[in-house]
Order: sequence, then C-alpha cells, then structure tokens
Amino acid sequence: MFSLEVCLTPDVLKYYDLHDKNVVVIDILRATSCITTALACGIAKIAPVRELEDCKAYKQQGFITAGERGGQKVEGFDLGNSPFSYHNPELIGKNIAITTSNGTLAIDMSKKDAHKVIVGSFLNIQSVVDCLVKDQRNTILLCAGWKGKPNLEDTFYAGALLFELQNTTKNWTDDSCMMAYHTFLAGKNNPLEFLSQSSHYQRLLNFGNLEDIKFCLTRNVYDVLPVMEGDFLINALLSE
Amino acid sequence: MFSLEVCLTPDVLKYYDLHDKNVVVIDILRATSCITTALACGIAKIAPVRELEDCKAYKQQGFITAGERGGQKVEGFDLGNSPFSYHNPELIGKNIAITTSNGTLAIDMSKKDAHKVIVGSFLNIQSVVDCLVKDQRNTILLCAGWKGKPNLEDTFYAGALLFELQNTTKNWTDDSCMMAYHTFLAGKNNPLEFLSQSSHYQRLLNFGNLEDIKFCLTRNVYDVLPVMEGDFLINALLSE
Repeated sequence: MFSLEVCLTPDVLKYYDLHDKNVVVIDILRATSCITTALACGIAKIAPVRELEDCKAYKQQGFITAGERGGQKVEGFDLGNSPFSYHNPELIGKNIAITTSNGTLAIDMSKKDAHKVIVGSFLNIQSVVDCLVKDQRNTILLCAGWKGKPNLEDTFYAGALLFELQNTTKNWTDDSCMMAYHTFLAGKNNPLEFLSQSSHYQRLLNFGNLEDIKFCLTRNVYDVLPVMEGDFLINALLSE
Repeated sequence: MFSLEVCLTPDVLKYYDLHDKNVVVIDILRATSCITTALACGIAKIAPVRELEDCKAYKQQGFITAGERGGQKVEGFDLGNSPFSYHNPELIGKNIAITTSNGTLAIDMSKKDAHKVIVGSFLNIQSVVDCLVKDQRNTILLCAGWKGKPNLEDTFYAGALLFELQNTTKNWTDDSCMMAYHTFLAGKNNPLEFLSQSSHYQRLLNFGNLEDIKFCLTRNVYDVLPVMEGDFLINALLSE
C-alpha cells in the first residue's frame, strides 16, 4: 500500500524526501487548471518556469508566453492565467512557456528530485487518480499555496485526492493529510460556496474571474495527464 | 472585531506581520502544557530558550533545567517534558529554563515583534480565550508543529480557539483558519481518538506517555495565563 503525504506549501517541501516518489503539484486557481486545459486543447508542450525573464527567453524560441503575477496577466505576455484562453484552435500544436506566482515554482522545486511530477486539477482528477493507482508509488501531494502560506483551495484538492484514493490506500504518513482530508469533507458538498471563504477566491473575484473559478472546480472535463519530461510538461496519455 | 490568523508552522511565520498583535503559541504535546502546569503549580518564572546550552547557562544562575529533544528528556537535565514533573511542592517558587524541539523555538521567534506572547494549551484554554476577548487585539495563533511541518494536535487546538471565539469574532484573515477550524470540528467529540492518528501521538506512545497525552487534552485544569515579560514567562493572572 503506497504512502501519501500532503505538503501544504512549497516552503516546507525541504522537510519531505522526494526521492523515488511521485509528486502531484496542485495550484487549482489557476495554474494547474490552465496547464491541464492547455494540453487537453492541443498545446504540444509547456515549459513551466519561475521567472518572467525565463518566459521571455523561450519566446525567442517561438514559444507563446503565458503568465500571471498576483492573479493578473503579465503585461506584454500573450496569455494570462485563464483556462479559457486555451479554448482557441489557433493554439493547437504550439508550445507555451508559463510562469505563475506559485504553481510553476512548485513544479520547478519538485522536478529535480521526484520520480515523476504530475499536474493535478479538478478538470483531470480521475486521470491523476488512475495514474497514482496504476503506479502504486509513494506520493507527495504538493500544494502551491499562496506566496508561501498554505491556501484553502489547494488543501481542499489534496483532500479530494485522499478521498478518491481512500479505498486504494490510507497509508497517510503525514499529519497534513488529516487536515486536508477533513477540509475536503467539510466542503465537498458545495465546493464553490466553501471556497468562497478563501482569500484567493476573493482576490480573483475582484478581477472578475468567477467563471474561471467555477470552471476550475468542474470535475473530469479532460482526460489528460500533464507530466514533466525533462524541462517540459506533456500529456502522458498521448504516449501510452 | 479583531482579526484571527493561524500560522501552521513557525517556518511560514515570516509571512505574517506580528507587529502590534497578540500571538498565542501552541505546542500542546507537550511544551505549552508543561509551561501552563509549571506556572499553575507555583513556578515563579520560566525562561523558554532555543538551545540546550542556553539552559545550562541559566543553571549557573540557579535555574532548574527542563528539556526535550525528539520527545525524550535531555540527559543531565533536571526535568523532561512531562507536565506531571511539576506536581512537586519542592518546585514552588523556583525558576525554570526550558528548551523543547518546537515550542520554545516558536516562543522565541514571536517575542521580538509581537505585542504580547501568550502560551496556550487545553489546560488553560478558557484563560486564553478570556484574555483574547478582553484585549480585542488582532491575534495570530502560532502552531509549533513538528520539526518544521504542521502537525495535527496544534492545528486542532488552534481550531478549538477559533471555535471558542466564534461568537466574539469570525474575522479570519487567513486560509489556515478554515483548515484548523474544520480539523477541530472533525475531532472535537473525541479528541483522544482523533489525535491518535497524529504522528506525534504515536511517537509519544512509543515512549509510554499515554497519561501525559490524556492530561494535555483535559480542558481548564488551571486558571493560569503564561505571558512573556522580557525574557521570562510569568503567570499574568497573578499581577492583575
């Protein structure tokens, strides 16, 4: 029975041993929902990078740039951080370089040591669950949080994964699992209302992003599994 | 309506502004339960210090030394980290220097910037609540966690404080409040059974400390309010 751990913020990732483990990176509002959507809509590969400058360097190589800071689109970039941006047939087959406040940092921190880095969102939760069940490998659920602090929506999603996996494994080796699990149970019957009490929900709402939030909370819109291969996220289901 | 924030581990305390706020330090298994008990049992003042060496320096000044590393008593120290150690009339009026793996670190990190540092445990939860209600000051509930990670028992206690204060204020300005609150709700009807799923419960049980754990989960054994004054914790209720 493989083990599950929840890391509530990248700031404490240093206390976790990633070696030989799968890591699911979680930043549902909105980086990992965007990545899921982009690959589902036919983007070929995605370079998740930490800095705005890294994105600009990829632009020289013909990549489309996408990015957000503080929840808002970066000036001069091609795309912001709305999953709906990717519902555009012109983007099929293109490559993207993306940087966000929290999510791409979490991916970058995991990729060196983890066995496999998977990107999770509600949009592809079943694909993530299927992968973990198939792999039977010890797994860390890494919440991107908000600027170093744990946040409600990513903890809630980590709890949703624990819930979906509970008939497969309840080998929770970390106290944060209990916290995530009970946070999910408290809100699972009405995620939108529950998460409306989160700080980032309010922040996004101030920018008029309610439709984004609703979409990001929709389950299994896409059968897609973003996984890191080298420096890029690709849809691992295409190569199976 | 004063604000409440929950900091799940001292590792993310840097993202919180302590200035002008009360901080409640929480390490219920067992540092803050010990401190509560010690002051209730007549210890005059307590120096909470980070390092073993700091304790030894206080010993030269006539302090009794108390300490734990990894849940076990430090060799050569007068006392370990069991609240029952303080049920000893010979200690009345004495001074103590204490160092623990997580709790005294959290106190030390708060004392410079906070308006007031309060030590909380179930043993004195009503005294802590009364103080916060009286002060009407923005407050951070600082969980000591376990070696940098959030832990279940301190998060549970933070949730208990939010619960007790919910008719006074629900001005929760931090997502971790929701996580702590729902963790508390999930376990409040049977704290011992709920916390038996925590990593530290298992660790303490391995050292034969079930009686300590049960005692630390008992509410309102003492009407005592440990507060930092300069470098020392004293019972603030004695000077009112």
